[in-house]
Amino acid sequence: MKKTVLTGDRPSGNLHIGHYVGSLRRRVDLQNSGDYEMYILVADLQALTDNADNPQKIRDSITEILLDYLAVGLDPARVHFVLQSSVPALFELPMYYANIVTQARLERNPTVKDEIKQKKFDKSVPVGFVFYPISQAADITAFGADFVPVGADQAPMLEQTREIVDAFNRIYGKGEKILTMPTALIHENGAQSRLVGIDGNGKMSKSLGNCIYIKDDSKTLHDKVMAMYTDPTHIKVTDPGKIEGNVVFTYLDAFCADEHFFKFLPEYKTLDELKKHYKRGGLGDVKIKQFLFQILDELLAPMRARRAKYQQNIAEVHGFLRAGTQAAIAKSNETLARVRAAIGTNILG
Amino acid sequence: MKKTVLTGDRPSGNLHIGHYVGSLRRRVDLQNSGDYEMYILVADLQALTDNADNPQKIRDSITEILLDYLAVGLDPARVHFVLQSSVPALFELPMYYANIVTQARLERNPTVKDEIKQKKFDKSVPVGFVFYPISQAADITAFGADFVPVGADQAPMLEQTREIVDAFNRIYGKGEKILTMPTALIHENGAQSRLVGIDGNGKMSKSLGNCIYIKDDSKTLHDKVMAMYTDPTHIKVTDPGKIEGNVVFTYLDAFCADEHFFKFLPEYKTLDELKKHYKRGGLGDVKIKQFLFQILDELLAPMRARRAKYQQNIAEVHGFLRAGTQAAIAKSNETLARVRAAIGTNILG
Repeated sequence: MKKTVLTGDRPSGNLHIGHYVGSLRRRVDLQNSGDYEMYILVADLQALTDNADNPQKIRDSITEILLDYLAVGLDPARVHFVLQSSVPALFELPMYYANIVTQARLERNPTVKDEIKQKKFDKSVPVGFVFYPISQAADITAFGADFVPVGADQAPMLEQTREIVDAFNRIYGKGEKILTMPTALIHENGAQSRLVGIDGNGKMSKSLGNCIYIKDDSKTLHDKVMAMYTDPTHIKVTDPGKIEGNVVFTYLDAFCADEHFFKFLPEYKTLDELKKHYKRGGLGDVKIKQFLFQILDELLAPMRARRAKYQQNIAEVHGFLRAGTQAAIAKSNETLARVRAAIGTNILG
Repeated sequence: MKKTVLTGDRPSGNLHIGHYVGSLRRRVDLQNSGDYEMYILVADLQALTDNADNPQKIRDSITEILLDYLAVGLDPARVHFVLQSSVPALFELPMYYANIVTQARLERNPTVKDEIKQKKFDKSVPVGFVFYPISQAADITAFGADFVPVGADQAPMLEQTREIVDAFNRIYGKGEKILTMPTALIHENGAQSRLVGIDGNGKMSKSLGNCIYIKDDSKTLHDKVMAMYTDPTHIKVTDPGKIEGNVVFTYLDAFCADEHFFKFLPEYKTLDELKKHYKRGGLGDVKIKQFLFQILDELLAPMRARRAKYQQNIAEVHGFLRAGTQAAIAKSNETLARVRAAIGTNILG
């Protein structure tokens, strides 16, 4: 039997190339390996935890995120696209898990603490937001996920799920494994799992307006690359330039992994050569930006084409979501039946 | 259309005469008035919030509590007995409500704070326990309850629900009332809503072992009444006795509401006369205990008979629960459909 992978995103805007490099391209690899049963969760419930007053944004984003998935090459014939709010087990399991997690433990979750700080919730943090690691444990266990691809910063989140699985099986399983223990698949490209925004101010984020979206057209992409933060002390072409903190080189590190890209810049053979030239002076920003633009444009062009195709038939796209969600309901209902039997809430059969 | 009433209990043991005087007899009155659609929730999910490691106790208690309901005269032809864990809306609604309640607000809930102190959870309080006012808001709103009979100490709990209804209708309703605003029916007999235990140490509570159960047989009842705490300074019959803190008189206040009970003690005509005699001396504890015993035995005898009858047919009892739960699912699914449409989580129809 294939091992199961659970992954997903909150639908609160379009996916950007930070998502691509940090996660989506890996999912496509996992899909193409043919080794896994993969559930990709459109986590609309979790998107509501910090967007309760703007449900329309989430609703609109569901379709957009599906188009982004299809654009990057995720294939509904090989993975399940799942709408979180349509899977009953994802409401029921958290209520059981909440009883075996202490409030103190939940409040210690470093990922949630960081996010609360970052979102400036302060004392007005919604209960749902504090609660979401428990909801996430439901997502992971409902489908019996063996593996969860995560960035290093999300590892504590999976630790919470693992503790819940351990406690649940101990309390209710009496030796039997009711829930599957998941394992983190930590990204090799840990540093890139949070791609910096084009302004160099922290990671790419919709609210900061510093994203390159997967759906950006060629002109928009060009404008954004040309506006990228580089080295403010690199004024004349002949000036020596800095690589560190230079967004163009950060992106080249992430996207120019293959030497074939030097067809766009035949004077160089490797990224190292390019960096050395920039550091000693004599290489202008426009030239490296044009190079990066061409690389990204080559990456995004087929994605745009797929997106445009599916955009013509949104009903079909929703059909993919419906089919994946049906598969997810069937699978998670098996877990739920085991859980209910173990706790004894199946008294009415 | 009839107004709707929501009430219920956590199945974590048999119901006692404290439940009867504080709540059950009122429910029977509401039922008999014929004015209300009444849902009586067997709150097994909430029982799990502080009994996560003992689900068998809850499972066993579900049947027991149903027998107690039938014993006191609640009638499945006129009220709905509902198993909380079998109603999907009661899992789904809390997840939405959690996003419009702040963590700070939840932690301020005085009822929950008191209970946490009382149960000596300290830092190991389970998330589910802190969360339960949100679950309770789901119980109340799922059935569109207009009225919730509560003791004065539970008023803050209903206040939390009212705030959720207000916020939900404001954020998602756009003027339309998606959720029904509930109103507390505060017990007139507020002081009796928490009947003291037979030892006089705080309210009647299974864990303190100071309860008289509805199902207690005549012999058990007699033993418990004879063991009641009275006035430790009232040593000889001729000594003057105290009424305050004297459990026998507390119970007489609660249960000897009708003068017809003086058929058991024809020397007196009113409770006041009896109290006066006790205070001035010359009235022994055994005599007042025997009087109380006879009153309680007259109350409980028909309840025992009904209980014994239903005990013979547990399948029928579970059938009542199944039927009531089906009605509850139908009703709450209407609420859920409105909620999902308002939030927009009905994208797959």
